[in-house]
Amino acid sequence: MTNPMIIEKQNQAAAILREKNIDMWLTFVRETGNIKDPMLDMIVGTGATWHSAFILTNTGETIAVIGSLEEANMKTVGTFKTIKPYLKSVKEDLIKVLDEYKPEKIAINYSRNSSLADGLTYGMYLELTNILKDTPYLEKLVSSEEIVSALRGRKSTSEIDNIKSAIKETLIIFDEVTGFIQPGKTEKEIAQFVISKVKERGFELAWDEEHCPAVFTGPDTAGAHSGPTDKKIERGHVINMDFGIKYNGYCSDLQRTWYVLREGENNAPEEVLKGFNVIRDSIQMAAAELKAGKQGCEIDDIARNHIVENGYEEYPHGLGHQVGKAAHDGGALMAPRWERYGNLPFIKIEESNVFTIEPRLTIEGYGIATMEEIVVVTKDGCEFLSEPQNEIYLIKQ
Amino acid sequence: MTNPMIIEKQNQAAAILREKNIDMWLTFVRETGNIKDPMLDMIVGTGATWHSAFILTNTGETIAVIGSLEEANMKTVGTFKTIKPYLKSVKEDLIKVLDEYKPEKIAINYSRNSSLADGLTYGMYLELTNILKDTPYLEKLVSSEEIVSALRGRKSTSEIDNIKSAIKETLIIFDEVTGFIQPGKTEKEIAQFVISKVKERGFELAWDEEHCPAVFTGPDTAGAHSGPTDKKIERGHVINMDFGIKYNGYCSDLQRTWYVLREGENNAPEEVLKGFNVIRDSIQMAAAELKAGKQGCEIDDIARNHIVENGYEEYPHGLGHQVGKAAHDGGALMAPRWERYGNLPFIKIEESNVFTIEPRLTIEGYGIATMEEIVVVTKDGCEFLSEPQNEIYLIKQ
Repeated sequence: MTNPMIIEKQNQAAAILREKNIDMWLTFVRETGNIKDPMLDMIVGTGATWHSAFILTNTGETIAVIGSLEEANMKTVGTFKTIKPYLKSVKEDLIKVLDEYKPEKIAINYSRNSSLADGLTYGMYLELTNILKDTPYLEKLVSSEEIVSALRGRKSTSEIDNIKSAIKETLIIFDEVTGFIQPGKTEKEIAQFVISKVKERGFELAWDEEHCPAVFTGPDTAGAHSGPTDKKIERGHVINMDFGIKYNGYCSDLQRTWYVLREGENNAPEEVLKGFNVIRDSIQMAAAELKAGKQGCEIDDIARNHIVENGYEEYPHGLGHQVGKAAHDGGALMAPRWERYGNLPFIKIEESNVFTIEPRLTIEGYGIATMEEIVVVTKDGCEFLSEPQNEIYLIKQ
Repeated sequence: MTNPMIIEKQNQAAAILREKNIDMWLTFVRETGNIKDPMLDMIVGTGATWHSAFILTNTGETIAVIGSLEEANMKTVGTFKTIKPYLKSVKEDLIKVLDEYKPEKIAINYSRNSSLADGLTYGMYLELTNILKDTPYLEKLVSSEEIVSALRGRKSTSEIDNIKSAIKETLIIFDEVTGFIQPGKTEKEIAQFVISKVKERGFELAWDEEHCPAVFTGPDTAGAHSGPTDKKIERGHVINMDFGIKYNGYCSDLQRTWYVLREGENNAPEEVLKGFNVIRDSIQMAAAELKAGKQGCEIDDIARNHIVENGYEEYPHGLGHQVGKAAHDGGALMAPRWERYGNLPFIKIEESNVFTIEPRLTIEGYGIATMEEIVVVTKDGCEFLSEPQNEIYLIKQ
């Protein structure tokens, strides 16, 4: 019954703790039905109601200090070897565990840079530091950022297989939607078609249904993070769609671009083809330089510069993020050196990181050209997990 | 298209800000697909990817400082009058808004006591205080706890109507499951039956499917927060179930108790009836004392004492929590004065708070007796929104 992928990630976490010289990783949560630490699915496999501490040590021990009402559930879930149930306060049992291991460095679940490593709320931080205030452990707390970045970023073979399956199923649905798109249909109708296919096959969407898929037709569309509207597809529109599913809990996240032929046209106009090709080429150029040891901002530069050199505006976002259990996963990010990205563009990319590559540009008067591919980083380069879109899809009606 | 219930709650929030002498309420979030502030559904109606500040003032202004990619989406959602999109960093626009209003007291989204008011992660707290470090506003930050407690706790008529509908539909399903329960069926089969009814009718579960419904049959069952197991129902078992749905986004949360008659029995044995009646009476006794102005711990005392006086162990949790958009809602809690409940048992109960009442006790050798009813607090007392279970349901097969 115990989920083997959780045990796999716990073991990987112990190795990462040793590598980073951290003794213990403590994830402190409560009422996860209201607000849930993003790491729980990966390293615990269930939620918690009362103040709860999920502890992993660099020796591979796993200790859950949880409310007594949840002891039986935790045993059933089976992911933690030692369960310490409490009735009135978490404090005593938590300090006992710390006294037993005497950690010199304790990573706790917060990070300025990475939302996935930042599940500790400020109220819970105050609770935790209050619990530890008369102990030596208060001075030993560090951010879990590096652990989470490595643990989520370094994908195992089984994780990559799940992502591959998610990609494969997504590309099948993209093929189907090509047959469905026609002038007069609205963005919302296209989205509904896609959602119905996902549900038919029993998959989950990779992100919230209001924006998955995101569908944009023609010029002057809504912003990239908008949901589909009642805007109708017209001949001469460039259409793009952003869409992903979850397969065994792992996400795909892909974009494709179409052109709706006008009467008498056999191909897209020159300027549409040019825009499409600049995006296509910028993806290949970025992928050619992507390998373990690079910084994300270096790779972002390549695609961004190619687009700007061709006379387009730079895209208002990063080139690519990691994909995994979350659609926006991992630590290292291929993004420009903008303040809001914090240190993420500077983190060194590692082997087995899985990244999207998703530049975009506006083709004046037609719409947005954007493809999003997914690659896995190898020692010397990267491999495409999605078969890249090489030509703009034409809608002939 | 704009959700009128969000506008209603925003207006209520402005009044609460005036009442509490707070100028501004700032909810600071990012990547809500990974971790979502519990208040967003109630006062915003959409998520955010980049660092975003959702600001409500005591004059009823609503200002969203968000990433430019999400401007169009925010306009479509339509819940914020002023939208300030930024490209590279939230800092400048956020400080500009603060400079415009010059708030003397800014509530931010954290709380030691209430998880629903505690959506600000520690990493984001560090980001926010870094943004504000050279401004006068750093010294003006307070917890949003009081606001959230009042805003979620004081239900409007339309909110109460939604909860009533959720309760009604839940009780219908409880009636149906009474006809389905029989010896030999497992807890999981009972749960599956309930879930199929919920899905048939297009409702959502009030909490996660692994524990909703929670079904417990016979003696020595799993802890209260466990999911259903393969344990089979037998004659002579006391069965209890914890279950709720969402109706228009509002939750029910109810429990009922059954007894499976043994051959030759026409009623439950004396000790089962006694246990059931002690629970039933403790609910009525607690409800009789519940009214605006009381503290939750006072009401908890009443049920707890009645149970202990009748020779049973006290229940290892609180008597009742608020219900609303979340199954565990609101601030004030009817709970004992245990450390892990923080200040929640001491907060004064207000008119239009909606509470569960859910004591439990173990009937040795038979199982757990527990009912959970829902009441709305009035000025002078409370009214049951659920029709209380007065007799143990008998399964005759």
